[in-house]
Amino acid sequence: MKQVPIGVSARHIHLSDWHIEQLFGHRYYLKVLKELSQPGQFAATETVAVVGPKGRFDKVRILGPARSKTQLEISRTDAFALGLNPPVRESGDTEGTPGITLIGPVGEIVIAEGVIVAARHIHFHTHDAINWGIADKQLLSVKIEGERPLIFEGVVARVSDNYALDMHIDTDEANAAGAKTGDNAIILS
Amino acid sequence: MKQVPIGVSARHIHLSDWHIEQLFGHRYYLKVLKELSQPGQFAATETVAVVGPKGRFDKVRILGPARSKTQLEISRTDAFALGLNPPVRESGDTEGTPGITLIGPVGEIVIAEGVIVAARHIHFHTHDAINWGIADKQLLSVKIEGERPLIFEGVVARVSDNYALDMHIDTDEANAAGAKTGDNAIILS
Repeated sequence: MKQVPIGVSARHIHLSDWHIEQLFGHRYYLKVLKELSQPGQFAATETVAVVGPKGRFDKVRILGPARSKTQLEISRTDAFALGLNPPVRESGDTEGTPGITLIGPVGEIVIAEGVIVAARHIHFHTHDAINWGIADKQLLSVKIEGERPLIFEGVVARVSDNYALDMHIDTDEANAAGAKTGDNAIILS
Repeated sequence: MKQVPIGVSARHIHLSDWHIEQLFGHRYYLKVLKELSQPGQFAATETVAVVGPKGRFDKVRILGPARSKTQLEISRTDAFALGLNPPVRESGDTEGTPGITLIGPVGEIVIAEGVIVAARHIHFHTHDAINWGIADKQLLSVKIEGERPLIFEGVVARVSDNYALDMHIDTDEANAAGAKTGDNAIILS
């Protein structure tokens, strides 16, 4: 049985070096609050406020390290609250997505694009993928059992030597499945 | 193909006659704002505030007519915001569920139980059920296609001469499936 631990992603943001400087100051470095399941990734102690046309969230967790492009990942529920209509996208694919206002302790910036609803996906270490015959970018059917059983289809496989086995879903998806971080999902095909 | 229209249920409340009187006044009758898909059911013009241990919603829509028991139906997302942990239940099955405070224009009451996350279900008119060979209380697998395809399992069939064909899911489930009211779902088995 191809069993995968679930990691539920609450709303969060990845920032570029340039945006970190604008929001937090010159030569500012994010501090590590907690290591995440993917090697080298961490939740930072810092948060930013994000302000949309209809609403705002005052404390959105920053995930580090810095990336080449700033990207805010929210649930569809969050999107309604902010007044945005972002598409479901894979991480990094932000062309044509909505922008938003970001507010940090020393500055405020408007990003022209970068707000997405993250496409559900599974990180595989290359060894796991080879063992199970799964290719990078393959679309999978994945079952979650429990109080609200369902099968997510079109779950994107992402394979790398830098990944640890983990299925990432957002809070809407976790709530619809009655799942929480640490529960297991089963790859059906 | 067994195709069923989807109706997305936002948070709402059903009130008993007694609770309507306590919240809105002696011999108060709910006014119809909009007829719903199920015959005789309506969204009322009236709303109540609901107050949980951690948060509140100021305007929760009342659905009429009055029922024998008061029941607040919320999403898992709403439950976190209120600070409650209600179970997933079928409508009417409120034994042992959390209570909450309700505030209307003339009174405030605390209900000892009645907060649920509604179990996803499909209303079938008896004719539809017979045509498709579906029995009352049968558990179904139902597919929703689109941007976030998934299969909901364990969807409860509810069959009655008083029902119109409609699949009811909550906002978390709709967001996880990328679905909205009026989209179609397909019964697989």
